[in-house]
Amino acid sequence: MEQVIKIGLLGLGTVGRGVYRILAENQENIRQRVGVKLEIKKIMVRSLDKDRGIPLPEGILTTNLGDITNDPEIKIVVEVLGGIHPALDYVLEALNHGKSVVTANKDMVAEHGQRLFKAAQSNKCDLFFEASVAGGIPIIRTLKQSLAGNRIEEVFGIINGTTNYMLTKMTQEGCDFDDVLREAQAKGYAESDPTADVGGFDAARKIAILASIAFNTRIPLHQVYTEGITKITAQDISYANELGYIIKLLGIAKDRPEGVEVRVHPTFIPKNHPLAAVGDVFNAVFVRGNAVGDTMFYGRGAGELPTASAVVADIMDAARDILRNVPGIIGCTCFKERPVLAIGETFSKYYIRLQVTDKPGVLASIALVFGNKEVSLKSVIQKEATGKTAELVLVTHRVQEQNVQDALMDIKQLSSVIEVANVIRVEGEE
Amino acid sequence: MEQVIKIGLLGLGTVGRGVYRILAENQENIRQRVGVKLEIKKIMVRSLDKDRGIPLPEGILTTNLGDITNDPEIKIVVEVLGGIHPALDYVLEALNHGKSVVTANKDMVAEHGQRLFKAAQSNKCDLFFEASVAGGIPIIRTLKQSLAGNRIEEVFGIINGTTNYMLTKMTQEGCDFDDVLREAQAKGYAESDPTADVGGFDAARKIAILASIAFNTRIPLHQVYTEGITKITAQDISYANELGYIIKLLGIAKDRPEGVEVRVHPTFIPKNHPLAAVGDVFNAVFVRGNAVGDTMFYGRGAGELPTASAVVADIMDAARDILRNVPGIIGCTCFKERPVLAIGETFSKYYIRLQVTDKPGVLASIALVFGNKEVSLKSVIQKEATGKTAELVLVTHRVQEQNVQDALMDIKQLSSVIEVANVIRVEGEE
Repeated sequence: MEQVIKIGLLGLGTVGRGVYRILAENQENIRQRVGVKLEIKKIMVRSLDKDRGIPLPEGILTTNLGDITNDPEIKIVVEVLGGIHPALDYVLEALNHGKSVVTANKDMVAEHGQRLFKAAQSNKCDLFFEASVAGGIPIIRTLKQSLAGNRIEEVFGIINGTTNYMLTKMTQEGCDFDDVLREAQAKGYAESDPTADVGGFDAARKIAILASIAFNTRIPLHQVYTEGITKITAQDISYANELGYIIKLLGIAKDRPEGVEVRVHPTFIPKNHPLAAVGDVFNAVFVRGNAVGDTMFYGRGAGELPTASAVVADIMDAARDILRNVPGIIGCTCFKERPVLAIGETFSKYYIRLQVTDKPGVLASIALVFGNKEVSLKSVIQKEATGKTAELVLVTHRVQEQNVQDALMDIKQLSSVIEVANVIRVEGEE
Repeated sequence: MEQVIKIGLLGLGTVGRGVYRILAENQENIRQRVGVKLEIKKIMVRSLDKDRGIPLPEGILTTNLGDITNDPEIKIVVEVLGGIHPALDYVLEALNHGKSVVTANKDMVAEHGQRLFKAAQSNKCDLFFEASVAGGIPIIRTLKQSLAGNRIEEVFGIINGTTNYMLTKMTQEGCDFDDVLREAQAKGYAESDPTADVGGFDAARKIAILASIAFNTRIPLHQVYTEGITKITAQDISYANELGYIIKLLGIAKDRPEGVEVRVHPTFIPKNHPLAAVGDVFNAVFVRGNAVGDTMFYGRGAGELPTASAVVADIMDAARDILRNVPGIIGCTCFKERPVLAIGETFSKYYIRLQVTDKPGVLASIALVFGNKEVSLKSVIQKEATGKTAELVLVTHRVQEQNVQDALMDIKQLSSVIEVANVIRVEGEE
């Protein structure tokens, strides 16, 4: 008698459809690899009438959560609704009914991970969430298993495809933020309200999840310093290029003896850094471990099938555990309590672009302020701007952020300084 | 009472020392992540007197395999001897004593994988070998678990660090093979007998392992077409650059309806391909799945700590399985029998460099032969060489290898053709 493990699916949007398609198309491969057939028995949706774009068996759809959580045949619940409500309640309900849960929901995992893991643990269930970060790239399993022998020193990467597409376009074509945003929206890469992407909030959730696994400590979302790409101009990109850098929106997490740094912001990285070549909607995560050294993991960070690929891998792992009656082999890994450092306590190099009046002595007065705050400068470029103003482009050596912020406060007071046009951190070089 | 899982180590060379160091240095992290302490109880070496370069507890060394295989406290045996004999006998002995085995031994896994997996299965043990391919890069676990929902279409990558270092040097500095080889040997990147690396045999073992997992079929090593980098000249590298390519030694495996292609050879890849930026001793594996699309995994392919990082991850997985009494959750995945296609049956584009006499009509006669064999040309560059000879650089469209070989047989007979100087396959573009 062939064994079958039955699955309940919550949601049938883009990712849900992808999961359904992969389980159908790769069914035989999957059955051989897991040793058991995987079958979606019920799919919970909001409306039974909507056209789903794929052929579905009669009676598979339901609007009633209980049809899934109360069905003893269903062993795995897959949540691909997105958003926190009602997904969180549904997932807790599934766990409390002893179902292993696979989710692609970064919002829910980033904000309620602890509660979810407690429920999974007390019900002896698996809770897998590979698809919640970087789509098809298997970065969660890599951190939890493949690099588990390492003390992870740094994790940083391109974990938002929309902004990477936009910055790639801006770099290649020299165009401005607003034009690129409109194009990304037209292509469906950016949403009509693009705040979550361009404001860095989507990336913040993902780096919070990655950092919590890498450093084994819970990262409260409100402690993740978050800055988006809305202030990046064609001018900044052009200066970056001139200086040998490329601008990427990075999620960055570093382990330091005093605590952990977790932040999202536009970043200068050297053109020869492996992340520099990651263009368009692709994602890539760079991980440095104390044994393995530098590693990078590259792939599609979103989309129906790439994200579903990660969901299906999780389903297969959950099924293997159920078959052998050992769900929870790898559970919550946040067994430390590390402080998250404030942005002023972090260290970086800085690119600083200033609008100044074009008069003798201006550079000297600015350099003096930086010197007073112990910010040493690595390079200075002075550019003619219009008529009586000039543009100063400075790159600092590695320094504590607070010193830079203090210096900039003073610099803004100088009569010769018209504007601090932009400040962008520099990472990825020694 | 704290639980301890004890380990026997076979070999204390570079990787063995790395495993010992990581288990010591990252001990607390590892204990928390696995939920149990991992401890090396015995290390088998050939001589008790040799200086090992690290402090070791009294009595940990032994020259007697039985001290490990007969010790009921030892649950995991780690084989880092390398080579097939005596490693194979030792590992079989360990499996037959019910020990889970972790190995870094590509030769043994590539040539005797089936026997090893049978022994592991019948003794209900784990057999893990992440470190056997691409050092610290977690590519085995990625294929077996993280991308398991996919039908894998292609796996190809830079899986030999020595030759990648050499080709990187040749590309950057325009120098010749022999000079670079001497430098690599002086730096310890190449062995005094470099045949396994520069001849492609090391890469052949690794791509055989990767292909067998990706396509779920055993790949006999003798069926892997293998060509090294000894024929690559500074001239080829310069032409590659001119044509928009870079030369890498790749292991390539492709799934086709008729069978699988598995081969190792120098390869032209486009400069904008993610693998093109992988320099020095770094490795990277590119995987295309029918759901996930294009992915790439990058890191150090060799060295004490990177390789040991992979070994320790395997030890941790083996320990998790032992703790829950479920070794063998993921065993042998070769449940198909696919034919391996002969090199003549494979498809590629080809770069062909010919030395010809510099006379009218030569190109026409060569083009005619290619046309007769249905090889269509994408580009032709004619270069003046010395006095009466010229160099013809051709790039073909995608075509079956046999047609190219047949055409070249005929071309060698042409009186105007002095030499077929090199033929290099082109991959990584549509």
